[in-house]
Amino acid sequence: MADLIETLREGLPSEAVVTDPDVMGSYANDMASFCEAGTPAVVVLPRSVEQVQHVMRTATRLRVPVVPQGARTGLSGAANASDGCIVLSLVKMDRILEINPVDRIAVVEPGVVNAVLSRAVMERGLYYPPDPSSWEQCTIGGNIGTASGGLCCVKYGVTAEYVLGLDVVLADGRLLKTGRRTAKGVAGYDLTRLFVGSEGSLGIVVRAVLALKPAPPEQLVLAAEFPSTATASDAICQIMERGHTPSLLELMDRTSVHAVNALANMGLPDTTEALLLAAFDTPDPAADLAAVGELCTAAGATEVVPAEDAAESDLLLQARRLTLPALEAVKGVTMIDDVCVPRSRLAAMIDGTAAIAEKYGLTIGVVAHAGDGNTHPTVCFDASDPDESRRARESFDEIMALGLELGGTITGEHGVGVLKREWLARELGPVGVEMQRGIKQVFDPLGLLNPGKLFA
Amino acid sequence: MADLIETLREGLPSEAVVTDPDVMGSYANDMASFCEAGTPAVVVLPRSVEQVQHVMRTATRLRVPVVPQGARTGLSGAANASDGCIVLSLVKMDRILEINPVDRIAVVEPGVVNAVLSRAVMERGLYYPPDPSSWEQCTIGGNIGTASGGLCCVKYGVTAEYVLGLDVVLADGRLLKTGRRTAKGVAGYDLTRLFVGSEGSLGIVVRAVLALKPAPPEQLVLAAEFPSTATASDAICQIMERGHTPSLLELMDRTSVHAVNALANMGLPDTTEALLLAAFDTPDPAADLAAVGELCTAAGATEVVPAEDAAESDLLLQARRLTLPALEAVKGVTMIDDVCVPRSRLAAMIDGTAAIAEKYGLTIGVVAHAGDGNTHPTVCFDASDPDESRRARESFDEIMALGLELGGTITGEHGVGVLKREWLARELGPVGVEMQRGIKQVFDPLGLLNPGKLFA
Repeated sequence: MADLIETLREGLPSEAVVTDPDVMGSYANDMASFCEAGTPAVVVLPRSVEQVQHVMRTATRLRVPVVPQGARTGLSGAANASDGCIVLSLVKMDRILEINPVDRIAVVEPGVVNAVLSRAVMERGLYYPPDPSSWEQCTIGGNIGTASGGLCCVKYGVTAEYVLGLDVVLADGRLLKTGRRTAKGVAGYDLTRLFVGSEGSLGIVVRAVLALKPAPPEQLVLAAEFPSTATASDAICQIMERGHTPSLLELMDRTSVHAVNALANMGLPDTTEALLLAAFDTPDPAADLAAVGELCTAAGATEVVPAEDAAESDLLLQARRLTLPALEAVKGVTMIDDVCVPRSRLAAMIDGTAAIAEKYGLTIGVVAHAGDGNTHPTVCFDASDPDESRRARESFDEIMALGLELGGTITGEHGVGVLKREWLARELGPVGVEMQRGIKQVFDPLGLLNPGKLFA
Repeated sequence: MADLIETLREGLPSEAVVTDPDVMGSYANDMASFCEAGTPAVVVLPRSVEQVQHVMRTATRLRVPVVPQGARTGLSGAANASDGCIVLSLVKMDRILEINPVDRIAVVEPGVVNAVLSRAVMERGLYYPPDPSSWEQCTIGGNIGTASGGLCCVKYGVTAEYVLGLDVVLADGRLLKTGRRTAKGVAGYDLTRLFVGSEGSLGIVVRAVLALKPAPPEQLVLAAEFPSTATASDAICQIMERGHTPSLLELMDRTSVHAVNALANMGLPDTTEALLLAAFDTPDPAADLAAVGELCTAAGATEVVPAEDAAESDLLLQARRLTLPALEAVKGVTMIDDVCVPRSRLAAMIDGTAAIAEKYGLTIGVVAHAGDGNTHPTVCFDASDPDESRRARESFDEIMALGLELGGTITGEHGVGVLKREWLARELGPVGVEMQRGIKQVFDPLGLLNPGKLFA
């Protein structure tokens, strides 16, 4: 251990090597509930590719596991420390190296905060779409590690679709360059995409070439109240079937609406069973909202309220973004699930979740990136009550089982981490797990990169 | 060999096992020039997943290499037979299994022809964008194997972006299911994307879940004449920098324009140095074309002609699609390159190609998916002239070297196959090649799948 710290210090400035137990404690885990976290041997905060290479060479030589970290806003325990590990925090590598409006790319280090990049490119008339709820804190490196999504995905897709090329430090410290700076490219296997969503288990991303879009017109939001989640789901299917391309299509159930009103008194309609938010960033968003409003009414909406302007739209989005903290406030702790089903099965997923909540006597709020069928059933419970905690955990598992049954996946955007590794095996099946483990072995033959994550 | 044929027949109907040398000859190669092709031991045409599994189990048991094939319209020799191999043609597995407008997906077998699928989904108000030039012949399985592009990519991206999930028969005959039917999903490593563009070297795709878009309005095309490729490239950069999203942005150089006029007398402007085609499928394409037309004029266009209607637009697209056959007619044979550079380097790429043509005393027409920086320098030569053939080959290599120098890739959409395997190693570098070979080893430990392709 003394050897480890000493060797690390040979290639890192002293302030980049942290061994104070209190400080290290703050690097122990991300924001997931119910996920084991160990005590790191050391936390390192490199500022250059060469320093990361030194860390990985040291780790390989001394056979010490490495847990890469961004801002630790993850919701699956993928960034949790393991006992005796090196926590490799990339937050100090936070430079935007290039923004190129002709090629529509940005080149960044992994520690850049999502919102910082988003604002920087917006100033150049460009748009970096991925917008996880934690966008003001989370880093691009973390977004790449978990293939993060957000509210924009229904129109703009997930992080994976914006990563063109990567520089990756391998487990043994060598540098691998993947992908390209060009709009297209098919030279060999797509290693770039392999790293996106690999949760730090294949290598350390130290630089990324990201694709940008031209900035769209400001979006205009509509809110529609429904007497049931079934009628709201029906409206969502109608909107998508008729060929609309909303920039946002979100659903909040009654529990979520009540929680937000309780937390922030946003004046959301307290009597609604399901609140649908739809938005367009098209040339004529009011016309698109009018068409979608008619579909909502036809599907049974009791009230359809288009925002008058950007300020009203912002308020509705703020309410939506408050849902998770609001649900947390209900009982103190939440487990946020992330089941994505084909959107045609959305009603079945939401109704099934309600049945599970009733079976276990729990409050489970459902907020959903509904246009993508990506639901976040959020189990609210009192962690000091062992029986309620047990029921919370069991209901969480049952929700994933339901998702798989409906042709869905256990994770639409939060990843596997520690939280869902048993369930990953269930989703992939034995042949899938064997191939995935084979790939892990190619990149990390000693099993040093984020061990215990993804696979049980 | 007798053993091979006999064992294959045990799990395949007799008409699915072809051993007639003349018939087999027609399965020996794809459409690439200068690529070796061997003589297969047998051609099989399975009609079911189980039959493909039987073929692969047989191949593994008897250690016989397998070359998977679609319509053999590829341009890199990736589908070329090797001596003694099993050619595994997927063209008889050509069913569209499902089109779902709510989930916006199609589920297809690999032998479905691109145009057949495109038309089938269009009847349901949906759009499958990838449109390689060979779309009337090429199969979805082949498109997945080479990660095909087309004219639409500047707005809609390449095949990879439309593949959500795959069923793959592995080298040993086991079935692997990757990906999902859902809009989002991040469960484990992205094996789906790994198979896209793997040129049949990792497994046999037997079923694909494809993402669809809502059908856009019909596109309207504009033609602009430029006094030089440099001014045309400048216009392209301006169009993209100003945030336009054309559905097509194509460039034909003087050689290409002349060739098309010579072949088909389309009435393209014979005096232009560079013809730019731009299109929009937006709600108001005429307004977008007007804005782009102004940018073209400002960049130096001598003539800007927006199409009046869909019929005029179609004529321009027909002319563009005729370019490759027209260049083929110039000297009998062509080598089509596929170098993609950052679009800001487009002018340097095109001018550099002209210098290479002059250096080698050759005719090299350049047609480009210019909005993506994806150029197709097409070397026209007389294959019966050994010296001209040698110069053609050398200029082809020099074009790729130029592409890499400009920060580009050796292949934007045609793939590596046999044609560019030495160049793949050059682009990836030794670490990249080692990792790619490691992945190949995981899926195909005996090296039976399309040997000699991708890697030298």
